Amino acid sequence: MVYRVTRRELFGAGGIAGVSLLGGSVLGSAVSCAASAHAAEFPWPYKKLDPAEVAERAYRDFRQGGCMFAGFNGIIGLLADKFGEPYSGFPSAMMSYGAGGVANWGTVCGALNGASAVVALFASGSERTAIIDDLFRYYVQTELPSFAPKNPRNDVELVPAKAGSPLCHVSISNSGYKLGSKEHSERCGWLAAEISARAAASLNARLEGTFESPLTIMPETAYCLECHGRDGEGPTQVGKMNCVGCHEDHTKAGTK
Amino acid sequence: MVYRVTRRELFGAGGIAGVSLLGGSVLGSAVSCAASAHAAEFPWPYKKLDPAEVAERAYRDFRQGGCMFAGFNGIIGLLADKFGEPYSGFPSAMMSYGAGGVANWGTVCGALNGASAVVALFASGSERTAIIDDLFRYYVQTELPSFAPKNPRNDVELVPAKAGSPLCHVSISNSGYKLGSKEHSERCGWLAAEISARAAASLNARLEGTFESPLTIMPETAYCLECHGRDGEGPTQVGKMNCVGCHEDHTKAGTK
Repeated sequence: MVYRVTRRELFGAGGIAGVSLLGGSVLGSAVSCAASAHAAEFPWPYKKLDPAEVAERAYRDFRQGGCMFAGFNGIIGLLADKFGEPYSGFPSAMMSYGAGGVANWGTVCGALNGASAVVALFASGSERTAIIDDLFRYYVQTELPSFAPKNPRNDVELVPAKAGSPLCHVSISNSGYKLGSKEHSERCGWLAAEISARAAASLNARLEGTFESPLTIMPETAYCLECHGRDGEGPTQVGKMNCVGCHEDHTKAGTK
Repeated sequence: MVYRVTRRELFGAGGIAGVSLLGGSVLGSAVSCAASAHAAEFPWPYKKLDPAEVAERAYRDFRQGGCMFAGFNGIIGLLADKFGEPYSGFPSAMMSYGAGGVANWGTVCGALNGASAVVALFASGSERTAIIDDLFRYYVQTELPSFAPKNPRNDVELVPAKAGSPLCHVSISNSGYKLGSKEHSERCGWLAAEISARAAASLNARLEGTFESPLTIMPETAYCLECHGRDGEGPTQVGKMNCVGCHEDHTKAGTK
């Protein structure tokens, strides 16, 4: 079977700014992928999952491979168990690299990185961006965790708190829990479970054509982007993170 | 064929702190993966590549799917072209989600995220961490780019600069190039190419048992970690990033 894929199918309509012609190489990969018995056409087909089941699965996965593996495999592992190929053929164990904000560098939270990666297997372009934006905003803006596993490894009570940032380093600091504590470990596992489950819920809704995020950019970030967004007077910057976590709000001094 | 995989093989000896017993699910996935004709045992086998060829490939990939796709597919795409399965079966297009620090959130640079992901297909545990640490340190500490593609899309001259951070947002700011400029776009592509090529060079060296990174933690970060590292007096934190990019150096005021 030879399957022709368009650039729109590969990367979506508005995914990458400045994309040029589709070269032979990516097309080649997709063709050989789709032509094999076990591989699927890209994006892969998603099948509806129970978010509660995803959360419990992701929590168990966290104990095996850390936060990014959990965020990813809560969905792929469950799909593999229920439906086999192509999901069971994905080398999910690779995703453990993202633990601690990628090899403990403290950058993007692994739960978000893993959940974003699995969303990207099923959705592309503006649909993918909308689902990932919702995950990041939920993680940053909401007092979490609001999920607790049925059988936590450690008997702890966690006080929900806003991470305030999608960065592992900042999120853990803002939780108030001591590094290496049982609370720290459980919080990361519960968060990964909750983010993976939310990704599943969003993918379910997308399947039914009803996905819509209730979350928007935080007012304080929108305020900064008036000048520092892509079309602002500048200096302009990349990103949707909250600014005042790292930068002073210089407008207080009347310098805006 | 039934292939039994140990936890050490899946996640390495020292990969994830606090890992408990290997549950049936991950094992199940690995078994069904290895049992299929097209999938490979995990970690996947790496084959030696020419870093210069990887760089040119990654630069071309950048134009198609952005920085994370480039960092990843510079290696997997080339392996797929040269050797077919299992490399050609990987749905690499998914990796475009990481562009602009994951869906333009400005978190971890996509070149680093993609190159780390592809390293994680081939190496695990402390070997994986050492190669990823080297990539991050090279990116943060070195005046880059030191690579230029043979046929750049835009005719620009780039002045090498230290990113100072593995974060997309900070890296682009520190480059001095205006957001959306040709220089900005080319810098991201050239960096992704260079990071993908360095990952290939490290994987080549690992294949021959000669991998060793010349780079260590920056003295200023090591200084902060004396108190704020996992074993310090605290407050302790997660990560290996440079601290004073976001935090004041309070020891200047004699408060250490």
